Amino acid sequence: MGASLLALDWGSTNLRAGLLDQSGRTLAERQQAAGILQVPQRNFEQVLFALCGDWLQDPSVAIIASGMIGSRQGWVEAPYLATPITPTAAAQALTRIPLRGDRAVYLIPGIRSTVHDSTEHIDDVMRGEETQVWGADIEPGSIVVLPGTHSKWVHCGADGAIDRFQTWMTGELFAVLGQHSILGRLIEPGDPSEGAFTLGVQRTLAAPEALSTLLFSVRTAGLMSRIAPTALSDYLSGLLIGAEVASALRRFNVPREAAQLSLIGEPSLCDRYARALAIAGVQAQTLPSGLAARGAWRLACAAGLIRAAEV
Amino acid sequence: MGASLLALDWGSTNLRAGLLDQSGRTLAERQQAAGILQVPQRNFEQVLFALCGDWLQDPSVAIIASGMIGSRQGWVEAPYLATPITPTAAAQALTRIPLRGDRAVYLIPGIRSTVHDSTEHIDDVMRGEETQVWGADIEPGSIVVLPGTHSKWVHCGADGAIDRFQTWMTGELFAVLGQHSILGRLIEPGDPSEGAFTLGVQRTLAAPEALSTLLFSVRTAGLMSRIAPTALSDYLSGLLIGAEVASALRRFNVPREAAQLSLIGEPSLCDRYARALAIAGVQAQTLPSGLAARGAWRLACAAGLIRAAEV
Repeated sequence: MGASLLALDWGSTNLRAGLLDQSGRTLAERQQAAGILQVPQRNFEQVLFALCGDWLQDPSVAIIASGMIGSRQGWVEAPYLATPITPTAAAQALTRIPLRGDRAVYLIPGIRSTVHDSTEHIDDVMRGEETQVWGADIEPGSIVVLPGTHSKWVHCGADGAIDRFQTWMTGELFAVLGQHSILGRLIEPGDPSEGAFTLGVQRTLAAPEALSTLLFSVRTAGLMSRIAPTALSDYLSGLLIGAEVASALRRFNVPREAAQLSLIGEPSLCDRYARALAIAGVQAQTLPSGLAARGAWRLACAAGLIRAAEV
Repeated sequence: MGASLLALDWGSTNLRAGLLDQSGRTLAERQQAAGILQVPQRNFEQVLFALCGDWLQDPSVAIIASGMIGSRQGWVEAPYLATPITPTAAAQALTRIPLRGDRAVYLIPGIRSTVHDSTEHIDDVMRGEETQVWGADIEPGSIVVLPGTHSKWVHCGADGAIDRFQTWMTGELFAVLGQHSILGRLIEPGDPSEGAFTLGVQRTLAAPEALSTLLFSVRTAGLMSRIAPTALSDYLSGLLIGAEVASALRRFNVPREAAQLSLIGEPSLCDRYARALAIAGVQAQTLPSGLAARGAWRLACAAGLIRAAEV
């Protein structure tokens, strides 16, 4: 079976391209550090053809893209759709960008989740993670966690619907505190420290409301030699992930026993989350990679951009 | 009455010098952006004489210093004393640094507070704030809050003792998130927004365990135009101060009604804290400035560096 779809996962820092056949099988993959913030003069078409021009010589290959490429800083802004949203509904709302030679790129919309608190609306947004979720086979009623710079917790409903979701800034907090705050001063690189990570997780699981004071203990534990300089980074990671897990389990009403969460993301980061969740008494399985391309293929089929083959 | 004491409040970013008479009255003040991290080759003596050499021509003027000047990155490391600690006890533990011409600088010790949780010790440290607290007349059993880069909550006992204290990273989180995270992208300078500040405080007071997810709402509130770009900074400030207030009131067992906290610090920042505390149902009064010099004078008297005059 020949190439049928070019699926782009185009984020802030990276562009991942997958060439798929009609059955959704990946024929080839390429990646480039050409995230939307790195593209000069926002000349996205040039970057696309430079990376995938040979694949696009076949005029029957359709192009679909997910991620920050559809944001205000991206190629064209693809509107946010409100939750709950099924993949079938999202496929009806692709944003078409015409390209040279009568082709087009179809942008997958971002999605928006709004909760109402006592005082006002609080919105949340995602771009890209929804396509990964739609690439997996998620049981209705279950929860998917996508760790990362902006970690997402997603509650799924019937027909693949994303019912609601929420973002934690865990990854970005870890990065900016390590690089730009006083906490980074005492941190030294070294082998992973399971013990320091566990201690951090335990402390914020027990007192997630105290995150901003427990963070200061990264400094004092270093000053007082309670934790080795090479283990402080894992301790900081544990504090932040523990706080996320504690508050997310509460917000998503996850029962502590017999719950089963799915993790999507970079394997070593998913492993950290699985360990933190286990300390909280919750089992988690890490899903295989390649879900963004798979989700994009499903949307392309639902939108009629390609015709799915019987597998 | 002539000059008797040079009191230095020497922190990470600033050096504040006060010339006091025997009764503790301030005769003159000077300030320089010569914090310990800004002094080349750690030549602190040179900086001191450049700023205050004329005052030091009188050989009877004693010199005492508080703050990060006594840290490992400072002039000489002054050991931390463990809580509970009275000003009288601290005055017996000054660190003497000999200077040219038979004089000396006396460093006020840092102090350390250790709490024991289920798994291990958690330390906290301060350098400089203790001297400000000792400059005030604090009722035994009351709480002093010192907002700042590393905000301190201090519980005072009998005889001016600092019984325990704890640090929140509120000010530094505000700075690094505004300058280095995605949250800063949508923030624009402008007039203070009382409403956005209040909304932030209300949200984290209601759910302090959710700080790391509520932080992301600074971005989404901007994206969705729920809060004006010029008000986002106050909203972020409110979220962080609200989370600190919620967790500190809990940790220090502060009753919500009839409690009276004292605030020490920069007036506009103390005003923010007083507003956040009022939303939480707690009254706070901001103490007058100049407490560092006053506290240093009291320690100098207790240490016998100067002889206190009857006022």
